[in-house]
Amino acid sequence: MILTVTLNPAYDVTYRVERLIPGEVHRVSSVEERHGGKGVNVSRVLTQLGIPTCVMGFADASFANTVGLPHDLVPALPHVRRTVVIHADTATSFWEPGPVAAAGSAHALLDRLTARLPSATGVVISGSLPGGIDSDLPARIARVAVDAGLPVVCDLDGDALRCAADVSGVVLMPNSDEFGRLGRSVEDLIAGGVRAVVATAGPEGMTVTTVEGAWSANVPEPLTGNATGAGDAAAAAVITGLAAGVSWPSLLVDAVATAAAAVVRPVAGEIDLDFRDRLLPTVVVR
Amino acid sequence: MILTVTLNPAYDVTYRVERLIPGEVHRVSSVEERHGGKGVNVSRVLTQLGIPTCVMGFADASFANTVGLPHDLVPALPHVRRTVVIHADTATSFWEPGPVAAAGSAHALLDRLTARLPSATGVVISGSLPGGIDSDLPARIARVAVDAGLPVVCDLDGDALRCAADVSGVVLMPNSDEFGRLGRSVEDLIAGGVRAVVATAGPEGMTVTTVEGAWSANVPEPLTGNATGAGDAAAAAVITGLAAGVSWPSLLVDAVATAAAAVVRPVAGEIDLDFRDRLLPTVVVR
Repeated sequence: MILTVTLNPAYDVTYRVERLIPGEVHRVSSVEERHGGKGVNVSRVLTQLGIPTCVMGFADASFANTVGLPHDLVPALPHVRRTVVIHADTATSFWEPGPVAAAGSAHALLDRLTARLPSATGVVISGSLPGGIDSDLPARIARVAVDAGLPVVCDLDGDALRCAADVSGVVLMPNSDEFGRLGRSVEDLIAGGVRAVVATAGPEGMTVTTVEGAWSANVPEPLTGNATGAGDAAAAAVITGLAAGVSWPSLLVDAVATAAAAVVRPVAGEIDLDFRDRLLPTVVVR
Repeated sequence: MILTVTLNPAYDVTYRVERLIPGEVHRVSSVEERHGGKGVNVSRVLTQLGIPTCVMGFADASFANTVGLPHDLVPALPHVRRTVVIHADTATSFWEPGPVAAAGSAHALLDRLTARLPSATGVVISGSLPGGIDSDLPARIARVAVDAGLPVVCDLDGDALRCAADVSGVVLMPNSDEFGRLGRSVEDLIAGGVRAVVATAGPEGMTVTTVEGAWSANVPEPLTGNATGAGDAAAAAVITGLAAGVSWPSLLVDAVATAAAAVVRPVAGEIDLDFRDRLLPTVVVR
């Protein structure tokens, strides 16, 4: 059982319009709405891979009741924010601000998580924080899970990433922007006790650096598609490999193929399993 | 008791962003969401004016439970659409398509309306239709209400307006675009049995044509503000005047002042009561 933690989930809404013209009224031709948030997407990919998972973190009752995945969410939020993406010739996004979590939410989440650790095989902590939550909460969750002997993957940003980088034994998976904002070298992080840094080099490649060495892997050909959600798919593969005790090189091959299988699907949280299977033997690792 | 009929309600969502740049991610600085639909806005204005009202029409259970107005809505819709307005230097709108109403919804609504007519003093039928509903439903509702001796105001478009224009005794309040699409002259409509055509000439003025004559009224000075909802405020004033048996000239003064009092408020369905009171004696009618 892999636990994923999403502290600031979202409803991801996609509108299709012919052209986006500022100042005009647009009749939307199609509307898609799904339960999102990076951890939720990780759990979706895990489910597709046949790995038992539980969505944890914060939400409201309505989100929890309709997420369609095994979940144990603290009803900490007055509402769940939306992200609206207008698809025309380009994608234009509008991100609602996150709501403010109720007092005591962090404590309630740590309690629920602690109760689930004995039956867990790994933890993924992803995404942003709602208002009212200290930025060290992901680090505190990570420490509790690492102390319980579990592999922990963190895909965080800003102060939350900064705090998590000080937790010995965590695997960090920031994207290149997030890593740039952290302002620390991979070597420094590993020397400080981070178990591994998994860095994406576009949708086609990935690098992992550990105390034992560094490996890179990439798909043989460029991909076209939707890179949103590729990082979440990679995180699903990484935690699955870590939970199973797979070596870094073969884990990396899996992560690259799984991320690529997300790129070829139009929506975040979905992977093309056949494409992944075909791609796996072609991934080059060095 | 004024009954308002909204067949295709909406959640009106307003996002504020600094600038709208197609292709970019925008962090929304503020989100407002309100229950909308033209009839709902009419009922809001009536409530502000102290006139008892009931919101009728179609919705889902969640919309009805949270609309915050007296209501008797048929739970005919699988969900209520959203209209998203992005406020930057200009307003850019995205209108979700309406859902499809359940079979038998029109019949259920006519039953509920008929039951409420004996205690009603007027009916307003406004706005668009969801899928699955024949465009003559507003006309059928209008006919039932007129036959019960009630004043009926219709603010409709397209085929629904075309059908309603054939109902003897109705008051039509299309805006100029809607009136243009109808392709019939005011004189023709009045000759055909329409009780009155109330036409807006921008936010500052209004004209009413009846079989007894025509009157125009306007505010003494230009207004700046949000014209969305001005028509709904005018409809609230018109039905109130008709229900009270007020003469057309004084009814028109009231409608112009009430519409102007909506323009100076930032959101549809609200009027500035003080501004309306100050404006009333200044409206010029001829």
